[in-house]
Amino acid sequence: MSEINKTLFTAALVIIGNEVLSGRTQDANLKFLGTELNKIGIRMTETRIVPDTEAEIIDAINAMREKFDYVFTTGGIGPTHDDITSACVAKAFGLGHGRHPEAEAILLAYYKPEDVTPARMKMSETPHGAELLLNPVSKAPGFRVENVYVLPGVPHIMREIFSGFKHYLIGGEPVQSKSITAYIPEGRTGGPLSDLQDRFPDVEIGSYPFNRDNKYGAAIVMRHTDMERIEIVAEEVRKLVRDLGSVPHDD
Amino acid sequence: MSEINKTLFTAALVIIGNEVLSGRTQDANLKFLGTELNKIGIRMTETRIVPDTEAEIIDAINAMREKFDYVFTTGGIGPTHDDITSACVAKAFGLGHGRHPEAEAILLAYYKPEDVTPARMKMSETPHGAELLLNPVSKAPGFRVENVYVLPGVPHIMREIFSGFKHYLIGGEPVQSKSITAYIPEGRTGGPLSDLQDRFPDVEIGSYPFNRDNKYGAAIVMRHTDMERIEIVAEEVRKLVRDLGSVPHDD
Repeated sequence: MSEINKTLFTAALVIIGNEVLSGRTQDANLKFLGTELNKIGIRMTETRIVPDTEAEIIDAINAMREKFDYVFTTGGIGPTHDDITSACVAKAFGLGHGRHPEAEAILLAYYKPEDVTPARMKMSETPHGAELLLNPVSKAPGFRVENVYVLPGVPHIMREIFSGFKHYLIGGEPVQSKSITAYIPEGRTGGPLSDLQDRFPDVEIGSYPFNRDNKYGAAIVMRHTDMERIEIVAEEVRKLVRDLGSVPHDD
Repeated sequence: MSEINKTLFTAALVIIGNEVLSGRTQDANLKFLGTELNKIGIRMTETRIVPDTEAEIIDAINAMREKFDYVFTTGGIGPTHDDITSACVAKAFGLGHGRHPEAEAILLAYYKPEDVTPARMKMSETPHGAELLLNPVSKAPGFRVENVYVLPGVPHIMREIFSGFKHYLIGGEPVQSKSITAYIPEGRTGGPLSDLQDRFPDVEIGSYPFNRDNKYGAAIVMRHTDMERIEIVAEEVRKLVRDLGSVPHDD
């Protein structure tokens, strides 16, 4: 884990599931986590999407947990045979794996005795020593081992669990952003924006093209921890857009 | 590149862009490519989402191109300063980088002379020896170097370019699938499905939970290259669902 007084905190997401790779399921968790982590000063810096295969899951978790302050995983912690994330996390850390007493108690209290199945109780298994991440929706918890946070793939459940522990995450200064839209093709803004980036290397300037109503344009997004600094560059962007004969729109 | 008579062809996707990691933009290209590649017998097996950072892009491309038959990249080939994918691909392969004569001719023919800007002409730059992937929408081409296919991030343009070259990709037998929906929580189907997977190890059985109208259920998806083999397992799944007192729905 990082030092508290550093300023840049990074995160990676490992999305686990054949269904996301095959195109059957559209992932919605990266967008949520990228946005929410940024609000607390943690920058999503890499994401890997891997199949339900033990070696791939273990490799991704081990590569990411060394490289980033926080690692989140989504998917593969349900009750079915293709849910192998928990066992993989244990192997990634070289830990034993079995029923977590607190998770077991939560599930036994939640299900009627006739609904307690071996498949459901599999959801009480964690790497030894894991800390539970409580699930207010469907009870089966996520868990944390060191800097790895293991969450379900179903978006509304993942979000509720995340909301329960996000206040414990240590971040830096949140990155602020401002977006200015211009109906000018990037081929014309590209040169002046590059010059502007050279003049203000500390402000990250991104240009994201779009086509709306058959008109090409771009959202020009500035990012920095200091909104006053962003506003200086934003005023330059507005001028640049006007100089190209168009009208800048603050988004 | 793989041998033609092998049966399993794999692909990876490298999604390049801070805006996808920050949550600003929802990627839509994985779902499209995963689906389309599967139709031609190529299985999307890993995806990495990396920032607009040279070292990260190069590392991801080099890791993926060794490991998979095909690598696709999306994003970062436009006219702005943050579009660095083309130069990174050149570095990943140890190739020079500069204007591709054919690409240059395409862009000069497309733009009115007064619209030819250095930023636009940057889009004619490729690694030396790259093969162009033609763009019927906005002309600026993608390109291929060995097994790496470099595409733009804007979905409708990426799709048109892909449609133009997909017939040249060599794949194996397409994976067929069948999905059966049951309004039974996974905690009850999990055990029987695990037994079924053990009895039919060659058919990949996935269970994807959902919550609709406050009822828990799952789509049980079977995948195999042989639809007759899938249908044998599907009949077992329908029986399993009925034995649990519910009604199976073919999706």
